[in-house]
Formats: sequence, C-alpha cells, structure tokens
Amino acid sequence: MRRSVGRVGRVTDRRPTVRISDGVVDRRADTLVVEEPLEVRVDGAPLAVTMRTPGHDVDLAVGFLCTEGVIGSTADVVSARHCAGADGEPNTYNVLDVVLAEGTPAPDVDPTRNFYTTSSCGMCGKASIDAVRTRSRHPVADDPVRVGPDVLTVLPDRLRAAQQVFDRTGGLHAAGLFTAAGEPVCVREDVGRHNAVDKVVGWAVREGRLPLAGLVLMVSGRASFELVQKASMAGIPVLAAVSAPSTLAVDLAAEVGMTLVGFLRGTRMNVYTGPARVATG
Amino acid sequence: MRRSVGRVGRVTDRRPTVRISDGVVDRRADTLVVEEPLEVRVDGAPLAVTMRTPGHDVDLAVGFLCTEGVIGSTADVVSARHCAGADGEPNTYNVLDVVLAEGTPAPDVDPTRNFYTTSSCGMCGKASIDAVRTRSRHPVADDPVRVGPDVLTVLPDRLRAAQQVFDRTGGLHAAGLFTAAGEPVCVREDVGRHNAVDKVVGWAVREGRLPLAGLVLMVSGRASFELVQKASMAGIPVLAAVSAPSTLAVDLAAEVGMTLVGFLRGTRMNVYTGPARVATG
Repeated sequence: MRRSVGRVGRVTDRRPTVRISDGVVDRRADTLVVEEPLEVRVDGAPLAVTMRTPGHDVDLAVGFLCTEGVIGSTADVVSARHCAGADGEPNTYNVLDVVLAEGTPAPDVDPTRNFYTTSSCGMCGKASIDAVRTRSRHPVADDPVRVGPDVLTVLPDRLRAAQQVFDRTGGLHAAGLFTAAGEPVCVREDVGRHNAVDKVVGWAVREGRLPLAGLVLMVSGRASFELVQKASMAGIPVLAAVSAPSTLAVDLAAEVGMTLVGFLRGTRMNVYTGPARVATG
Repeated sequence: MRRSVGRVGRVTDRRPTVRISDGVVDRRADTLVVEEPLEVRVDGAPLAVTMRTPGHDVDLAVGFLCTEGVIGSTADVVSARHCAGADGEPNTYNVLDVVLAEGTPAPDVDPTRNFYTTSSCGMCGKASIDAVRTRSRHPVADDPVRVGPDVLTVLPDRLRAAQQVFDRTGGLHAAGLFTAAGEPVCVREDVGRHNAVDKVVGWAVREGRLPLAGLVLMVSGRASFELVQKASMAGIPVLAAVSAPSTLAVDLAAEVGMTLVGFLRGTRMNVYTGPARVATG
C-alpha cells in the first residue's frame, strides 16, 4: 500500500481564554485538542466525514474501512493518500482517498443499502440492528488468551502514560493495544473515541497483524456497542474500558465470545462476558 | 403534531457480572444503561440509525431533524410515531417515522449531497467543513443574556441531581437546559452525548419554544463541534461543558457569537468565547 507522507497533523492549538476561579478573572491562552473533519473517499467517491484529531489519518481511514467490513487486510488497499492541494490553494490535509485493489468491492453508498425492504414493521428493530451490525472475518470465541487481573489493573495507567496529548488538553480519548503481559503494542489518541480505535486497527491492518489474537484493547471511556463491534472486526478477544458498558455492548460481546471488562479502576473491575479469560489464580 | 404513545422505554437493564476487587471474586448482576438502535424515517424513507437509550424517542427524532436543519418548528411536522408491530411480531419500538408537513422538503439522502463537485482538491477541506456545517435560523450573537459565574458553578450539580439513571449505571450523558438564574427547564439523558442534546432540542421544538433565547445548555462531557452546532441550531446563546472543548468547537462558537464555557468544575471555569455574557461583578 502506498501512503501519503503529508505534514504531521497538528494535534493541539491555542485559543485565548478567560479563566475564572473563585470569581477571580485571568486572561491567557489555553491549549486545546484540534478537531477537524476528515473526508474519507474510496476510489474517489465520498464515503464518510468524521470529526477527528489530525494525525495517523491513513490509519484512521484504513481502520474505518476495516471495522466497517469494506476491507479485510492491507492487500485490499492499493493506496491511501491525502488529496494534493490544487495550484495556489492550501492543502488542508482533510481529504483522504483510498484506492481499493481490483476485486475488492467498493462500499455501497446507497443510503437504503442497510435496510431490509419489508412491510413487517415488527421486524423493524431487527432490521435496524442488522443495519448497524457488521460480520467479522476474525472469530474471537476460541482465542485461548488469559489475562490476570493484576495485568488488567495496570492498563489504565499505562494507557494514560502513553497518551502524549491528554495531559496538555484534557480533551482526548485513547485506545491502546496491549499484550496479555501488559506491554503496549500501539496507542492512539483522538477527540473521537471511535476514531482512536479505528487508528489502532488501521495501524494493525497496515502492519499485516490482523487478526489481533491474544491481545487486549484498553479504551479510556465507556464501552459502547460500536467499540465492541470494532474490536470484533479486528479479532481482538479482550476489550477493557475505564467506564461503563451498555447493554448492547455486553450482548454483542457475549454473542461473539469476547471478554468485556468495564469500570476498570484501581484494583477493581467488572467482567461482563468471557470471565474465563481473566485468570483469577 | 401527533405522537405515538408507545411503551415507556426501558432505560436500564441488568446483566450477570463477575466483580473482581483486590483479587476477590464476587458474582452478581450489574445495572447497565440500555443502548438500542433507533431508525429515524422521514415520510417512510430511512434517514439515519442512531444508537440511543430508549425514551423520549419522538423528542430525539424531532430534535435530530431540527439540529440537522430539516425542520425549523413543530409546524413542519405532521406526526412522529413509532412504527406499529406487524401481526404476530413484537414491536421493538426502534423505528420512528416522521411525516413532514406539506411544503417542508424531505432531507436529501443522496450521499454525495453535501460534497461540492470541484476538481480543486485544495478546497477539499473547505468542502468537508461545509459538508458538516448547517446554517441556523436562530442567530444568537445579539442575545443579551447575562449569567453570573456563581450560577454557572452550580449547574453541574443541578444537572447531576436531575439525572435519574446515571447514579444507577454510571453510563449516561446528560444535557440540561437552564434559565440564566440556574433553574432547570429540561434535562435529558442518553448513552450518546449528541442524543441527549437532540432530546432537549426536540422537546423545545414540540413545545414551540424555539429559539431558546436567554437559556444555558449544560452538558456532562466535552464540548465538540457538533454540540456547539446543535446548540446554535436551537438558538441557545450559552453552552457550558464539564470537560474540554475542541478547537473547532471554540472556532464555531466564536463565529456564531455563542458563549462557550469549558472545564466547569467546582468554582472554576474557562470561558472560551463570548465572555461578556458571563457577568463577573
């Protein structure tokens, strides 16, 4: 896969700020996380716009295409490049075009694609769930990895330690891939929690490391349905979150055989699914 | 506008959980926030699927259509109803159809609708920004409201106090509309932060209260571009967030003349834009 080099994305920027503390007013600049739209094109056709923090844009686009089920490996991608600026126009580096390999079907952008044309409205909910469900090529149910609670409890601190921007802005989500021994493999930050996971998955796709068997994905926030689904698409057997999961996240994790850990704080955690992988002595 | 009554959405549910604390294992159920897809249809045509917490679905759909610029007031909506279940099939209450009034154009669901067909890739970023920008019918720049820091500092606690589900699940975002004196007007919760805001805006649309001049919107998380945009579409002059804003959130707030407050915690806050509305004695 050919990649654009581009400029390194600016991930923080400063804005004038009025700080008020106990009624005392102080004016100075604050460092904020940068949020900009990234338009992802496939073979030149616009597919999606995501609000993201610049940087690792190729990983974000490739990871998004993977977790959406459009591509399965780096072999499905010929190139992923920022559009070059036209003469005399600044390049914003906010548009990225992914060229798919011959034989890899482009995503169907028909907005009705995901909706079953059924007159049975009782099935509407089922159709809606199906609309947002993708099918993973990488089953995780039989992944034999074991992770001790003592390893899991250090992951939030290790994720935080690997976050380069959060401490300056307080505004970034993080997703980190760790070995079962707790060693960091890849950590990415983004203003959007889904984007942080897609950046990790996209890195793995480009490195030819899918499925991510035997690894743990640690996320800084909550565990939603979509995060479980993205982990599933990448073949990740264990997802751990600092905060709460939703019912649908737990239900999907149970269905695909993933271990889902929530409220991972201090020496405590809740294991919602697949507790056999959390070796408790 | 006619509304469906439907069942009251179940906002929490229980799942078996293995709790581990300092290596001690305890098995019992945990109460989680419910996350389910809601398919929003307009005049019978699928428009979007959002992962949401059931409840206030009509407000969510109507608010979404408002903040996306499809409707401007309750007069643009004839009815908003959950699809009835077919014979013998359970109704999941996960599909909601909004019928627009005659003369209100249906949203263009052509996926390329928002993209300028230009060969100038230097303009791509501009086009991408334009693609996600909506134009508000309710300018806020001249809203003369003043809110004291002493009022702002009590809003996070009042928002939390009004949250019915968070304490049981730890999994919900909240958005609350308050008067300049700090009195709650409407508070909504959702597993998705955008949905919580759309539910508040949808309530206001149905009540015929747009524009929401003179009011403060308090949100439980971060202030992103999209939240500033949603507040702008509803004519809300002051947006306050517990956590960090992004650069684009600050830039949009500055452009539309909205007051944006971030890191509102304890007796401290950062006022990023429109500080004149925060009366400091």
